[in-house]
Amino acid sequence: MADAIPGIEELTGGKVSVHETVQEMYEKLHADGMSNVFDRFDPQEKIRCSFCSDGVSCQLCTNGPCRISEKAGAELGDCGIDPSAMAMRDMLLRNIMGTSTYAHHAYNAFRTLKSTGEGKTPFGITDENKLNWMAESLGIDTNQKKEDIAIQLGDALIDQLSSNYDEPPQMVEVFAPEPRKKIWKDLAIYPAGVMHEIKDATASCLTNVDGDYVSMAKKALRAGIATIYGAQLGLEMVQDILFGTPTPHEVDTDMGILDPDYVNILFNGHEPWTGVATIYAARDPKIQQKAKEAGAKGVRVIGSIETGQELLQRFEMDDVFRGLTGNWLAIEPVLATGAVDIFAMDENCSPPNLKPYEEKYQATLVSVNDLVRIPGVEENYDYKPTEVGNIANKLIEMGIENFTERKEKITPHVPARIQKAVSGFSTEAVLQALGGTLDPLVDVIKEGNIKGVVGLINCTTLANGPHDYMTVNLAKELVSRDILIISGGCGNHGLEVAGLTAPDAADKYAGEGLKAVCNQLNIPPVLSFGTCTDTGRISMLVTELANFLEVDTSQLPVAVTAPQYLEQKATIDAMFSLAYGLYTHLSPTPPVAGGENLVNLLTDELEDLTGGKVALGNNPQKAADGIEEHIIQKRNELGI
Amino acid sequence: MADAIPGIEELTGGKVSVHETVQEMYEKLHADGMSNVFDRFDPQEKIRCSFCSDGVSCQLCTNGPCRISEKAGAELGDCGIDPSAMAMRDMLLRNIMGTSTYAHHAYNAFRTLKSTGEGKTPFGITDENKLNWMAESLGIDTNQKKEDIAIQLGDALIDQLSSNYDEPPQMVEVFAPEPRKKIWKDLAIYPAGVMHEIKDATASCLTNVDGDYVSMAKKALRAGIATIYGAQLGLEMVQDILFGTPTPHEVDTDMGILDPDYVNILFNGHEPWTGVATIYAARDPKIQQKAKEAGAKGVRVIGSIETGQELLQRFEMDDVFRGLTGNWLAIEPVLATGAVDIFAMDENCSPPNLKPYEEKYQATLVSVNDLVRIPGVEENYDYKPTEVGNIANKLIEMGIENFTERKEKITPHVPARIQKAVSGFSTEAVLQALGGTLDPLVDVIKEGNIKGVVGLINCTTLANGPHDYMTVNLAKELVSRDILIISGGCGNHGLEVAGLTAPDAADKYAGEGLKAVCNQLNIPPVLSFGTCTDTGRISMLVTELANFLEVDTSQLPVAVTAPQYLEQKATIDAMFSLAYGLYTHLSPTPPVAGGENLVNLLTDELEDLTGGKVALGNNPQKAADGIEEHIIQKRNELGI
Repeated sequence: MADAIPGIEELTGGKVSVHETVQEMYEKLHADGMSNVFDRFDPQEKIRCSFCSDGVSCQLCTNGPCRISEKAGAELGDCGIDPSAMAMRDMLLRNIMGTSTYAHHAYNAFRTLKSTGEGKTPFGITDENKLNWMAESLGIDTNQKKEDIAIQLGDALIDQLSSNYDEPPQMVEVFAPEPRKKIWKDLAIYPAGVMHEIKDATASCLTNVDGDYVSMAKKALRAGIATIYGAQLGLEMVQDILFGTPTPHEVDTDMGILDPDYVNILFNGHEPWTGVATIYAARDPKIQQKAKEAGAKGVRVIGSIETGQELLQRFEMDDVFRGLTGNWLAIEPVLATGAVDIFAMDENCSPPNLKPYEEKYQATLVSVNDLVRIPGVEENYDYKPTEVGNIANKLIEMGIENFTERKEKITPHVPARIQKAVSGFSTEAVLQALGGTLDPLVDVIKEGNIKGVVGLINCTTLANGPHDYMTVNLAKELVSRDILIISGGCGNHGLEVAGLTAPDAADKYAGEGLKAVCNQLNIPPVLSFGTCTDTGRISMLVTELANFLEVDTSQLPVAVTAPQYLEQKATIDAMFSLAYGLYTHLSPTPPVAGGENLVNLLTDELEDLTGGKVALGNNPQKAADGIEEHIIQKRNELGI
Repeated sequence: MADAIPGIEELTGGKVSVHETVQEMYEKLHADGMSNVFDRFDPQEKIRCSFCSDGVSCQLCTNGPCRISEKAGAELGDCGIDPSAMAMRDMLLRNIMGTSTYAHHAYNAFRTLKSTGEGKTPFGITDENKLNWMAESLGIDTNQKKEDIAIQLGDALIDQLSSNYDEPPQMVEVFAPEPRKKIWKDLAIYPAGVMHEIKDATASCLTNVDGDYVSMAKKALRAGIATIYGAQLGLEMVQDILFGTPTPHEVDTDMGILDPDYVNILFNGHEPWTGVATIYAARDPKIQQKAKEAGAKGVRVIGSIETGQELLQRFEMDDVFRGLTGNWLAIEPVLATGAVDIFAMDENCSPPNLKPYEEKYQATLVSVNDLVRIPGVEENYDYKPTEVGNIANKLIEMGIENFTERKEKITPHVPARIQKAVSGFSTEAVLQALGGTLDPLVDVIKEGNIKGVVGLINCTTLANGPHDYMTVNLAKELVSRDILIISGGCGNHGLEVAGLTAPDAADKYAGEGLKAVCNQLNIPPVLSFGTCTDTGRISMLVTELANFLEVDTSQLPVAVTAPQYLEQKATIDAMFSLAYGLYTHLSPTPPVAGGENLVNLLTDELEDLTGGKVALGNNPQKAADGIEEHIIQKRNELGI
């Protein structure tokens, strides 16, 4: 593996995944001769380009492609760009891809809220308190009908996306910690609306525009701030308003939740609209009756990756909604079970080569988002707030049709394992668990039962070990050292499926101090806060903690890790974390090694600017050592 | 050269440029030991990556970097992406960088118009007719004070940038040809506002989102339409309103326009604001007196590349404004003259390694745009409409300071050549030259004196021959075949400096038919329509022609060429041209060769969808053959 710790193959027995169900299904689909992400890794490994891995390869313009090679007398790109700027430009561009994706989600959330206020969607105002709280935060009169408030809040949040440089977004002003705002203004990284940051950062990456790695790094930090406050935080709050604020509850995860005798409609991606609408639609006894008439036991909605997590954290298990299968590397395996009728793909994270799975395992693929397209899949039902009810019905109809065919053609193979998890933590839920105040949390931190808190937010990748190896093992290390984890993203699903968020996880994995706290509060040592999009939600808790203690976020015994990140949403979350002043562990190493100055900036000099810094390393024990050391240092500095 | 015709080195005597002044200055700066874009090309050539050149190298996620190599058993990227989608995704991302840059320019134009209406800038409403015409086009009441119209038009155009998918931009509705609108709707490429297209196309390029090359190609076409109508056309019209609609007039070009005894302030880039403000400021006799007190003969403003072209097409030569030096590959050479006091960089096209030139040749570098950053340049005066007057004064002050030092330290070396050019064509100017109707143009086309019209819009690059080799030689070929050229972009400056837009150019270069028309109308055979941003303006003339003939644009004897394009603004212009239904010649070959299906789509199948298609080829004669053949075919189909 590209960036794995030496000897890992022996350590992991050559397995592709730490999850036995994924391993089992991998073995099946491999035996079935299916091309898959696991088997494609090794041939790529053999032809991997070290210039690309080090960030010193550029494909932007026709004077290139260029590479940096002192040996070849090519110390600069043809245009004159230096290696640090070349690597940072590519990183900024990747960051902006993440920002754009979150902004797409946010825009859909805000227009959904507005359409819901107008009575044009199947959704309602589920959390009216949150509606009023958000509306008040943005200066909207709450002395109105809730529908009117919803419309005005939707409009206000859409406007916020495009706040210009002269009137920076209220969302930052309202939700960011005071000491941070000053730091960001001093560094000229206080952002405009996310739409302008996208436009201007992307334009800065054009050939012969921004050639300065420090300037581009600052643009990335600024985009990070804009993303979290301008897009993520608003969209998560809006989803709470529409579908309810998450509260902790027991759920089922892993592939065993699939019963092939049902019409199983899987929702994959990040945006939850069509998934929620389908849950609502499938609750109709007439719909269930239709499925029964086709020979099924009923219609079920199943969550996959982040769309699944959005459902998981807000919906109780019932006859219709059955839980979450896993994260993105489990997609090909879950399709191979032959128990999926509809694989409905919302933005984002649907790998492109799924058509052969549709054909082989009789699972109908359908995109429910304008961004997502899979070669060979012609039938797409892009989300529109006013159409989502119809689309849900259409998906169910297609699911029943698929079931009939699937039952005839396919012998399903579903791994038996089901894993309990506690999902649905949120700032509000944590406060509630603590009796309404942060005092108890601060006390246990001060006493040392909890040494500190780590936000673990990431994807999953094969680059630094088997599927979820680093995520699961680093999490085990941290909780064993009395460090509480708040988790989000595909990594979070890895932890859920691995049992780290289970009711019995504290007893199994936590150190003595943490275990005592968990048992007292009846929480697991890893708090499932949701998706990568919930980075904003996680930051709210950290901001609360900093405000409560009257310190800056950079002074807290808090760190962030993305121990097995894959893509561009993770990288912009990391940029926010750095702007927010946090120690940020990243694995695998991003493609920056060819830019020495850039590496110094990220891993060292940045600390003097924002208080944040990047830590690297692909060994779970050593990564935990670094995090623990940082946390202890912060404790010492706070005198606790 | 990466993509040059065989034997070109002998053909061109090993020169780096077709322009003798650039060649002369290259020889000087090479002898001075300066790192430069020409000398950096060869070492890159030796380590060029063929996977990157063919578009089948991907650096997006941590499961990569990946390459496509059937030999190595890597027929797909690790995620499963196929070669055509891999190449198209990178192309879409490059396209969007162009769109973002144009959108940045447009946003600045619109807010400048608004601020000017509010009386907060040094600018005024110069073309009131155009203000009223644009305002009426967008349904704004023109029965008001011009300042109020300006404010409302500025706001309306800013709103247009963010038109959502449910209310597509009025700009497209108003300015696009009717038959095109139908085609675009049928293909689902009728765009939203450019800000949404940027966000969504960028998000589509995320790992595991859009894996379908056809879908991504359509997103690129849609972005092309959004760019031209939503950004370019509005911004050019606003610049006309503020600074005057271009009309043809004689101007000076090439490096000989620099007189080292003056304080020379060069404006480089694309946005013209600070350049115009500095012309206005330098007209003040007190300012000129200050320069004289410092030992200079006065203060002059000189244009470089597109910012220069924006000035050139609107301002007569006078004591202050002296013309245009050349295009982007002339930047390092012009700095080496030792006759530049301020090199003020507006968005975009300032290569990153200029600091050594500042030091060696005593030219003060300063960015006047938030996007542009040059390593080592600390003093930046980013554009704000309300500050631009102060910034202009500051630049003049810095220029006078630099002059004092430069005079002591530097012996200037300025090539003597000055080239006359006719600049400032526009749809209005063409109509005026024709006596107010398109009849005379249509008549000469019908009679065959003009066979057809080619839009030549591009940059310049070293990849397919020396600086401007392909641009100049293809233009000579075309006009010798009685094909009229309308030109924009850095390529246009190449043609200006090479004499193709000169008053005597028709006699020198045009075929007999075209020569007669040119002499009759007193125009050159290449009409300088401005910058790459004037692609919108050029499309207006073509739309007029199509409407006048009551045919679709794809039926016209018209083609587009980007014979020496460099970067991402050129690529999005090309996407528009394809969406607009035109034969579009591109050289060098874009990085798509590794995606066979994509190549087929662009060069063949697309013609059935939009009427447009890509033609490739790096030999000027052969490229002209293809274009002429297409034009003759279209003439035949029209029965003329």
